[in-house]
Amino acid sequence: MHSPLSQTGPSQLLASPRSAWFAAFAWALGSLNPSRPNMTALPRSAGRQADHPVDPLFIERWSRRAYTGEPVPDAVLFTVLEAARWAPSGGNSQPWRFLYSHRGSASWGAFFDLLLPGNQRWAAYASALILLASETTRLRDGQRVKATSHSFDAGAAWAQLALQAEKLGWSARAIGGFEKEKARLALGVPDDLSLEVVIALGKPAGAAMLPADLLEKEAPTSRLPLSALAFEGRFPQG
Amino acid sequence: MHSPLSQTGPSQLLASPRSAWFAAFAWALGSLNPSRPNMTALPRSAGRQADHPVDPLFIERWSRRAYTGEPVPDAVLFTVLEAARWAPSGGNSQPWRFLYSHRGSASWGAFFDLLLPGNQRWAAYASALILLASETTRLRDGQRVKATSHSFDAGAAWAQLALQAEKLGWSARAIGGFEKEKARLALGVPDDLSLEVVIALGKPAGAAMLPADLLEKEAPTSRLPLSALAFEGRFPQG
Repeated sequence: MHSPLSQTGPSQLLASPRSAWFAAFAWALGSLNPSRPNMTALPRSAGRQADHPVDPLFIERWSRRAYTGEPVPDAVLFTVLEAARWAPSGGNSQPWRFLYSHRGSASWGAFFDLLLPGNQRWAAYASALILLASETTRLRDGQRVKATSHSFDAGAAWAQLALQAEKLGWSARAIGGFEKEKARLALGVPDDLSLEVVIALGKPAGAAMLPADLLEKEAPTSRLPLSALAFEGRFPQG
Repeated sequence: MHSPLSQTGPSQLLASPRSAWFAAFAWALGSLNPSRPNMTALPRSAGRQADHPVDPLFIERWSRRAYTGEPVPDAVLFTVLEAARWAPSGGNSQPWRFLYSHRGSASWGAFFDLLLPGNQRWAAYASALILLASETTRLRDGQRVKATSHSFDAGAAWAQLALQAEKLGWSARAIGGFEKEKARLALGVPDDLSLEVVIALGKPAGAAMLPADLLEKEAPTSRLPLSALAFEGRFPQG
């Protein structure tokens, strides 16, 4: 004996109210249970389209320039730094060091002055600026030795910071264009720290606040296809 | 008139079955809705304790050595690479390049031979080895110029890869201890790529499979307190 369901095609399934509720329920279960990711959904976000079913967070995060300028609560600032703190690093050396300044605080001017004029135009409305530096030496068996992966490790910490900011409804953009030697003097950065980036942390604002040329660029960037980035066995030659 | 609830203290609330169900429901809502993070929960995981309410993912991810050796499906391999692909980078230069080998494939021996003996002991049961390299030059206005943040950017891609692996129930560990010049020759790595790490990707196995000295170390590592990593305004001197 055939059950009635065995003769039901996909379109009929979707047309049945009971099946639709069941499908919605199953979908919700799959979406909400972190141990059972939906391996078939290809997330999209604001013009970005994933080619493989990544966690949506990775395509929802982008490096905004339009911020409200509102004060950042400690609950947000320390939580994004906490996410960075748990990043992996070579030999668990944790070379990342963070120096932060709240917008309008006594130190804000010294931080803001480090940025190149092009970045100052939008970073004026960041809630905090965070200098990320990395230790160029590390302890091994009680001796200071040259660290080989400090910049790489600092980049891992930065990614975790940026993802956590996005999860809190805030956003972060890393700025490579800043005056490094001036930063070292102005902020008392020890000689054995390498200056990596200044991170602007802010609450996203409408892009309309930006000057016209920046407004035009205020959108998530695209990426090269995976086929141009990943290869099996040996690098393609030529 | 006082409602009976106004005279109910916290312990009485917990003792009331109806309130307990309500509390459980409210907790579940808060936990499941990604737009309303629970800002008061301090996640714990396997000996790790967060000091600020980060997304649990950041403390749940750790760099395991014990893997099953089972084949990694393309759905997992390409999804972790896809997460890396969406990392932020200086000027969106995307300097990361990935070269992978499946355990037991024709190229596996060439990859495995690059690892130092200490890492070979456990990496033999990784499902794939992934060489992560970064472009040391970038295009700016049609000209190749020296890239200044390629290692930092590659580190951001690595963090996203590792977090995505954890989300899929897989795990990744970055290996700095490998023979870089040998890798360049054996795998045809172009001169303008810098060799960053070899990533072991695998499905977590029980630690009991490891040799005794590695078994002892098979646990999530701790971190320095945030008070040793982050400062306001100016680096502490001395």
